[in-house]
Amino acid sequence: MQIDLAAAPADPGVYDERKRRLVETFTKLYLRGSWRPLERLIRRLHAADAAAVLVELPVPQVVDTLQAVSDLRHAAQIVNKMPLAIRHQIVEALPHKDLAELLENFRPDDLTDLIQALPDEQRDHPLSALDAESRSELDTLLAHDPGSAGGIMTTEFFSLPEACTVQEAIEALRGYADAEMVFYLFLTGEEGRLTGVISLRQLLLAPSDAQVADVMSGRVIRVRTDTEEEQVSRLFDKYRLLALPVVDDNDVLVGIITVDDIIDVIGESTTEDMLRMAGTRQSEMLTDSVFRIAGVRLPWLFAAFLGGLGATAVIGQYEEVLAQVIILSAFVPIIIGMAGNVGVQSATVTVRGLATGAINPRDTLVMVFKELRVGLLLGAFYGVILAAYGFWVYDSLQLGQVVGLTILTNMTGAALLAVSLPMLFVRLKADPAVATGPFVTTAIDVLGVLNYFAIASLIYGL
Amino acid sequence: MQIDLAAAPADPGVYDERKRRLVETFTKLYLRGSWRPLERLIRRLHAADAAAVLVELPVPQVVDTLQAVSDLRHAAQIVNKMPLAIRHQIVEALPHKDLAELLENFRPDDLTDLIQALPDEQRDHPLSALDAESRSELDTLLAHDPGSAGGIMTTEFFSLPEACTVQEAIEALRGYADAEMVFYLFLTGEEGRLTGVISLRQLLLAPSDAQVADVMSGRVIRVRTDTEEEQVSRLFDKYRLLALPVVDDNDVLVGIITVDDIIDVIGESTTEDMLRMAGTRQSEMLTDSVFRIAGVRLPWLFAAFLGGLGATAVIGQYEEVLAQVIILSAFVPIIIGMAGNVGVQSATVTVRGLATGAINPRDTLVMVFKELRVGLLLGAFYGVILAAYGFWVYDSLQLGQVVGLTILTNMTGAALLAVSLPMLFVRLKADPAVATGPFVTTAIDVLGVLNYFAIASLIYGL
Repeated sequence: MQIDLAAAPADPGVYDERKRRLVETFTKLYLRGSWRPLERLIRRLHAADAAAVLVELPVPQVVDTLQAVSDLRHAAQIVNKMPLAIRHQIVEALPHKDLAELLENFRPDDLTDLIQALPDEQRDHPLSALDAESRSELDTLLAHDPGSAGGIMTTEFFSLPEACTVQEAIEALRGYADAEMVFYLFLTGEEGRLTGVISLRQLLLAPSDAQVADVMSGRVIRVRTDTEEEQVSRLFDKYRLLALPVVDDNDVLVGIITVDDIIDVIGESTTEDMLRMAGTRQSEMLTDSVFRIAGVRLPWLFAAFLGGLGATAVIGQYEEVLAQVIILSAFVPIIIGMAGNVGVQSATVTVRGLATGAINPRDTLVMVFKELRVGLLLGAFYGVILAAYGFWVYDSLQLGQVVGLTILTNMTGAALLAVSLPMLFVRLKADPAVATGPFVTTAIDVLGVLNYFAIASLIYGL
Repeated sequence: MQIDLAAAPADPGVYDERKRRLVETFTKLYLRGSWRPLERLIRRLHAADAAAVLVELPVPQVVDTLQAVSDLRHAAQIVNKMPLAIRHQIVEALPHKDLAELLENFRPDDLTDLIQALPDEQRDHPLSALDAESRSELDTLLAHDPGSAGGIMTTEFFSLPEACTVQEAIEALRGYADAEMVFYLFLTGEEGRLTGVISLRQLLLAPSDAQVADVMSGRVIRVRTDTEEEQVSRLFDKYRLLALPVVDDNDVLVGIITVDDIIDVIGESTTEDMLRMAGTRQSEMLTDSVFRIAGVRLPWLFAAFLGGLGATAVIGQYEEVLAQVIILSAFVPIIIGMAGNVGVQSATVTVRGLATGAINPRDTLVMVFKELRVGLLLGAFYGVILAAYGFWVYDSLQLGQVVGLTILTNMTGAALLAVSLPMLFVRLKADPAVATGPFVTTAIDVLGVLNYFAIASLIYGL
């Protein structure tokens, strides 16, 4: 039977079929109690593939199966490739001793992620399974802001004092168990201060009796533990890095961040931006309960609700105008909708530009002036069409004037507001994506309706 | 003077100050015509930093400065770190001979990106600068879909026949100029078919007289040229890869994709998703003209405009109802707004889930049923509040019933529509992000208003 998932992952059809067969085989071996063949099978699978198969099985079966895996490093990697919710269930279900052995084989940064995501009341079980050393390492990592370099770095890394030869460095690397993710060798001087870096390629090509200090590069791109993760991911992108050393205030090497962690950061931070702009907080999972999901979305909708009530109150004030020109109410949706849509466009472009570095907060005035002109252009275009429609369909010059002028001014105002708020938030060191959630659209709704009826009162002379 | 930008990039204040001084120095040396010192200075800068300094200068000065850089590989890397718009200006301004030399030092995938982004009428100048070999290589790459593995891979990579010793492999690597981005050695058998992979670390630690075939891994994760780039980036994430070989239909190795390219892909594809959901097409740049930006956004707004006119027409049909219960029009904004916001939440969660693989198209029914319940919960919550508000403020039981029922049904319907459309689009192999742009919100607006007045007619018996 062909079980090599990893060699054919690019064709989803083939992959899914093989995975389905593996799910069957896992279950068959499990029901028979054939632990040895099951363990051999798992050992031959890439951790990511083993995880993909296991998450299809019931949690008690997963826990029993994991306990049969003797390579604990592999077991830890498998668990780390599972969705957070399942990881938590496994941690809860594992007996104390097995959990202790498993957690010892977690990378420190993965362990931090796991504990960080657990509600306080569920932390005792895994924490008590840690030995004193892992526990103190974990405490150090947990002390950093999760959104900083210190919060995403791992403290398990390979470094050497700079006073060694190439041959000694290679020997040291040979004795290092978890060298899979070693791309560069970081070199340290007095008191562990970071002094240089050498790539594996340079090490491979250097004469074996050379001093490492003579072939290393002394210009090491580094970050401090408190550097923000967005800044970290920008550096990875800018300098095409595979790993980045993290130093403390005294320039002592305390951890490293590898490119695979950054791929997660980039994906997560953009996804978070999108979710915040949409007015929700975090990725929902299939396993989340309906009440939990509703609980996350409900508060954000409150901003929209209050805004809506505001608009209702505004229109209520103009009841007399409405009573005389009843058709004005028919145009409320299009007037709100057009301004809202242009606002979302401006806001998204601005928030993304700020996040990717394409827009500099310095350029606020340029951006605002540009959006002013874009808003005027778009507003003039759709304003003329709607004015013509109002005049033509309802045979009223006044109606045409009112709706046309409103579209022009509302679209321009919406574009201005939607570019200004994120820029302002960035300057206030707040998250621009939040500014563009329900808040901008709600502000646009209320101000838009107010403007509409103000213009209507003026033109109809009411 | 300290000029090492690369060693202190994490502190934006220090970085900006040093950059400012470098901008001054560049200009001083340029005005003096001191090409040698200028060239030495640039040689000591990381390409990304040299680019950051040069983009602050006028284009003619950049072109002259680049012509003074004798290390053409470095010059090409510098140009590649500049924004696309400036890259194009430089290409246009460089004399034929210098352009030819520069382009020869581009990585094939960077060259493809450059040409692909040029309007047709501007391609002649760079294309005529290429020699026959580069030209045919470029044509091969341009033939691939830009969103596929073939479109992002580079054809400049390091591979060896599997029949060699470790020592021979190291010697070959020593002779390979552009080894900077070599992480793995890919090995080929008959007719160039991909047969194995060995990491630099394995090469470093293996006995030098061993046969590469004995130490390599034969299980190579690979993609075909037509594999979609989203699938490629998922594989990088899943298997924590640094490089991924690309093969043709006959399993012949034709290119590789490196992790730094994937960082771009992840950022770009999420950004594109966001922009499409917001109803605009592409990242705007500070250099884009206002007319160009308005031109990109205008067509997307048309969907919202037509939808708005639809809602206007619907309300127009209910003019009689409105004339009798004028206050109904005051609730139009909140009724549209609440449904629209819950729709954006559902749609964003769904689109992101599909993009990150957290949601499987297979789970459509589960997702739809879940959103149905979330929508009902949220709709019931806000429906009861709005009903109470309507009853209390306007002292009308009927009004309370109408607005409460409308919020309940509209929010549920919006959540259902917003989850169903992206899932449907995925099954139809279309882009789910597009489905959730102005289209979903517009559909929600029109159907929502229709539902509102239908309920009102019924309850008021009009």
